[in-house]
Amino acid sequence: MQDPHSAHAKSPSRNPAGGSSGPGFPDDATGKSIGQYLIDRLQDYGVYDLFGIPGDYVLTFYSQLEQSPIRTIGCTREDCAGFAADAYARLNGMGAVCVTYGVGGLSTCNSIAGAYAEKSPVVLISGSPGMNERAGNPLLHHKIRDFRTQYEVFEKLCVAGSELHDPVTAFNEIDRVLDAAARFKRPVYLELPRDMVDVIPHISHGFRPIPPQSDATALAEAAGEAATLLASAEKPVVLAGVEIQRFGLQDQLLTLLEQSKIPVASTLLGKSVVRETHPLYVGLYEGALGDDAVTEFVEDSDCVLLLGAFMTDINLGIYTANLDADRCIYATSEELRIHHHHYHGVVLEDFLRELIQRISKLKCNSSSRRVLPAVRAALSGENTEPWRARPKTPISITRMYARLNEQLDDDTIVIADIGDALFGATELTVPGRGDFLSPAYYTSMGFSIPAALGAQIARPEQRVVAIVGDGAFQMTGMEMSSLLRYGCTPIIIVLDNHGYGTERILHPGQWEYNEIHPWRYSKLPEVLGGGVGYEVRTEEEFEQALVAAWADDKQLSLLQVHLPDDDSSVALRRLASRLGQRVRAE
Amino acid sequence: MQDPHSAHAKSPSRNPAGGSSGPGFPDDATGKSIGQYLIDRLQDYGVYDLFGIPGDYVLTFYSQLEQSPIRTIGCTREDCAGFAADAYARLNGMGAVCVTYGVGGLSTCNSIAGAYAEKSPVVLISGSPGMNERAGNPLLHHKIRDFRTQYEVFEKLCVAGSELHDPVTAFNEIDRVLDAAARFKRPVYLELPRDMVDVIPHISHGFRPIPPQSDATALAEAAGEAATLLASAEKPVVLAGVEIQRFGLQDQLLTLLEQSKIPVASTLLGKSVVRETHPLYVGLYEGALGDDAVTEFVEDSDCVLLLGAFMTDINLGIYTANLDADRCIYATSEELRIHHHHYHGVVLEDFLRELIQRISKLKCNSSSRRVLPAVRAALSGENTEPWRARPKTPISITRMYARLNEQLDDDTIVIADIGDALFGATELTVPGRGDFLSPAYYTSMGFSIPAALGAQIARPEQRVVAIVGDGAFQMTGMEMSSLLRYGCTPIIIVLDNHGYGTERILHPGQWEYNEIHPWRYSKLPEVLGGGVGYEVRTEEEFEQALVAAWADDKQLSLLQVHLPDDDSSVALRRLASRLGQRVRAE
Repeated sequence: MQDPHSAHAKSPSRNPAGGSSGPGFPDDATGKSIGQYLIDRLQDYGVYDLFGIPGDYVLTFYSQLEQSPIRTIGCTREDCAGFAADAYARLNGMGAVCVTYGVGGLSTCNSIAGAYAEKSPVVLISGSPGMNERAGNPLLHHKIRDFRTQYEVFEKLCVAGSELHDPVTAFNEIDRVLDAAARFKRPVYLELPRDMVDVIPHISHGFRPIPPQSDATALAEAAGEAATLLASAEKPVVLAGVEIQRFGLQDQLLTLLEQSKIPVASTLLGKSVVRETHPLYVGLYEGALGDDAVTEFVEDSDCVLLLGAFMTDINLGIYTANLDADRCIYATSEELRIHHHHYHGVVLEDFLRELIQRISKLKCNSSSRRVLPAVRAALSGENTEPWRARPKTPISITRMYARLNEQLDDDTIVIADIGDALFGATELTVPGRGDFLSPAYYTSMGFSIPAALGAQIARPEQRVVAIVGDGAFQMTGMEMSSLLRYGCTPIIIVLDNHGYGTERILHPGQWEYNEIHPWRYSKLPEVLGGGVGYEVRTEEEFEQALVAAWADDKQLSLLQVHLPDDDSSVALRRLASRLGQRVRAE
Repeated sequence: MQDPHSAHAKSPSRNPAGGSSGPGFPDDATGKSIGQYLIDRLQDYGVYDLFGIPGDYVLTFYSQLEQSPIRTIGCTREDCAGFAADAYARLNGMGAVCVTYGVGGLSTCNSIAGAYAEKSPVVLISGSPGMNERAGNPLLHHKIRDFRTQYEVFEKLCVAGSELHDPVTAFNEIDRVLDAAARFKRPVYLELPRDMVDVIPHISHGFRPIPPQSDATALAEAAGEAATLLASAEKPVVLAGVEIQRFGLQDQLLTLLEQSKIPVASTLLGKSVVRETHPLYVGLYEGALGDDAVTEFVEDSDCVLLLGAFMTDINLGIYTANLDADRCIYATSEELRIHHHHYHGVVLEDFLRELIQRISKLKCNSSSRRVLPAVRAALSGENTEPWRARPKTPISITRMYARLNEQLDDDTIVIADIGDALFGATELTVPGRGDFLSPAYYTSMGFSIPAALGAQIARPEQRVVAIVGDGAFQMTGMEMSSLLRYGCTPIIIVLDNHGYGTERILHPGQWEYNEIHPWRYSKLPEVLGGGVGYEVRTEEEFEQALVAAWADDKQLSLLQVHLPDDDSSVALRRLASRLGQRVRAE
């Protein structure tokens, strides 16, 4: 078993920023093979670990990887490798997954689609048949229809891609594609024919990425208008979304907030973009599905600055949000809109910088400061008394999250799977910035356990807590095997209510399809030869198990928490009510 | 737990052949909703069970299904549902998988690709956002890029598909797409917006499938030439492939063989297309990778009739086959070639029928009968002595398969996963026609356990034996959960050699990426609350466990067979040697 705390024992020998002229200006490309060049460029972007499963079309590349500074993390399934790479990318800035052709590549479709939807920069590398093997279009194993099929599938799911067929262009293509991942924060696809891996191109190349630039006068007008609106507003508020984290703008956001003293809420997908213990943070905004105090605070605002936030159905409380455009400034990496007019050619990072400059010069209206304490008091009302286990009381999800909330510290990364694991997590206060992960837009069940692997590999010094429903656990929970293999020690909390809790509420009735077969999840450590399992039914048992697991940081812990079939969080009931109306009405 | 022996307890009330004019002529379509029509048409094609996982975009359709004669088999993962539907389709003639949008659909990509490659008629049904929800292209959960993305992905992986957007055309589209699945034996895609499920179209329709027809004179010429060549050949042989089983031509094949007395071999993908105990059956033809006696017998022939066989790299022993076109007649559903000339417009079924007619009138050369007994004796040489457990001897894969071979009977369905599970299985004699399943062209690991579910649901009266390597088991083995949930009682044999055995041989050396984390597979019944586990290390233990499991037909049995890391079957060593040359050379 490897020690994850030596994650970067294989530190690259070269400057991560690239050659003397930075990434994209490889002075010493001559003499490298295509595979070697890819390995070096991945490290330029900070990828020191990748996830995957070998197969005969990619073995040559895997052998190069094993002799490189990049660590290969073997997973049990390729979709889990994809989720792990996604979580790694969210924390690290870029991630990579490496698989074989067809059976490997196509097994990652869902994971890559989720990364696309949620803007996670994952590099999917797939081996493929050698160019020399393809003559006459023979029926090679793992081939589906023709040799373009897999590429054409990933054209739909990635922002850029390349089949590295040609030594003359291979290095350029690698640069172009990795640059696209970094620029757009979306997944990309690189296909590596197995007879190209060792080829050394005899040509120098000169890919020059063109950094996006704002139109200077558009930028000035937009920032000026926005600054004026915010400064003169009576009750301004910032709604911060996940792009702030993806594009590394968290420090700038903090500067904006602290200079202007404007309070901030976040979307569900963006939860923890600001550390939730920050004095200006008011909570999660979720339209009619969220806490009333936060909803009123945001919707009562006369100027809402939505920064890097996607307006998804989940984020908007299934379209119950009352955010009229004529009170909003909406700025993302793709769009900038003030009230009903749009600005083009303005880069988000530049907009934020110019806004900060202007805001610091203007006197901001101070009335917001009066409202804030009331909201925060309302939000923290339930937590003024410390949690105490009530004797002989069955554990409920609300009480479980309340107790877990007290346990979190600055080093905890929280990962919530889809279902009440996520909706209940809206009641957590995550102290660490960027330390909350959940696929809260694409909403793919099964994200959390492989994501725990990715997160632990990216951040071996932090503690990972993954909360997952039993239905989601059955999908990918056996990736615990890889957590154990690589010596990771997360705390896994399985919410066991014998079924798909969210669907039960969406479609009430004794539908057999919402039931699942029960597993003894707490026995899995015995099967997997590592970690320790706890079985929890009462509040006392939960507290004991959580405290023991937290103290036992040398082992993986799995808490199987039995919940009544009809137990659910307040947030889920609100959401289900709204979604249920939609399911039935249509 | 449900009793699989009551699989067809939900028999449809209507004639499975369709309305009074047969499938495609629905006299009573008026008054049915789109969802209901689809449910009825699936039953017309013999689909009485489907596999999947519910989700909010498909719940309305799931509720219709639960109230219909079609049984919904809930799986733990959608890719397993796809494999299960594939196995069901191979045995039943058509299968179906039903999932939700995006997270469900895209999780089936690999399974559907395998069904495409191996000609398995699987119907993929996916829920999707309602038409009314899509206005303005909002960011709905599970959406990837736009509302066409999933459809466009499956355009690559299916032979036909439709987004059922329009009540006016919905019934026609359902008919067209299902007809394509039946005609081409490839997967198809049907997308069902959730607000269309209950819509009752007020329009009659009249899809008329046009059955494929042969050009009569081309057919006569081709059949005449082929019959003459076969009748005058000194040493003719038939090489039968999987299309004979897919297109239901097994009886015709037998007629051809028994009238002409021409011996028959089969490809690996087509193994069991003829029952392997048939007197005319000589064995598996695998080029240089197969048994020498069979290879010589086939390659020594002066007239090889390849019927319904794909010339894949695995089937051809990685292109070691010596089958010159000038000795071959090559007939599939897509091509008819005699020596170097092609015939167009000849349907495989018609060709076979006309060939039988003509052959029965010609006197066939009898010299082949002299060669046959020698080959069969050579093949069965190792089995003339009954297997006896050697005391205190570790079990090897060759000995394991030899003992298993003695256990198989006419009711056994054998499913082999990819790796030595498959290569070792080449040494099995499968008595039942059509009773061997393996993804021997697309070669996706993880097929067998979900396929066992599909097979058991399709054939509850038969015994399923699934042989799977530990690496493949870790991918999908937890679908055992569903096997238990639905009361299935297969025998699962896990070949435990702590790694990816095939890759170890392909790339010798202590590569960490070929290792996997060890599981205590025999303890899984305790975690899953059903079935019984056996741990096997010696020949005696294997015999005891196999006998006990075979007798215990009311429970699922899992045999964890420990094998040395370097043990492998003869066939794998031959294959690996050939593939290894290819991996290193390119």
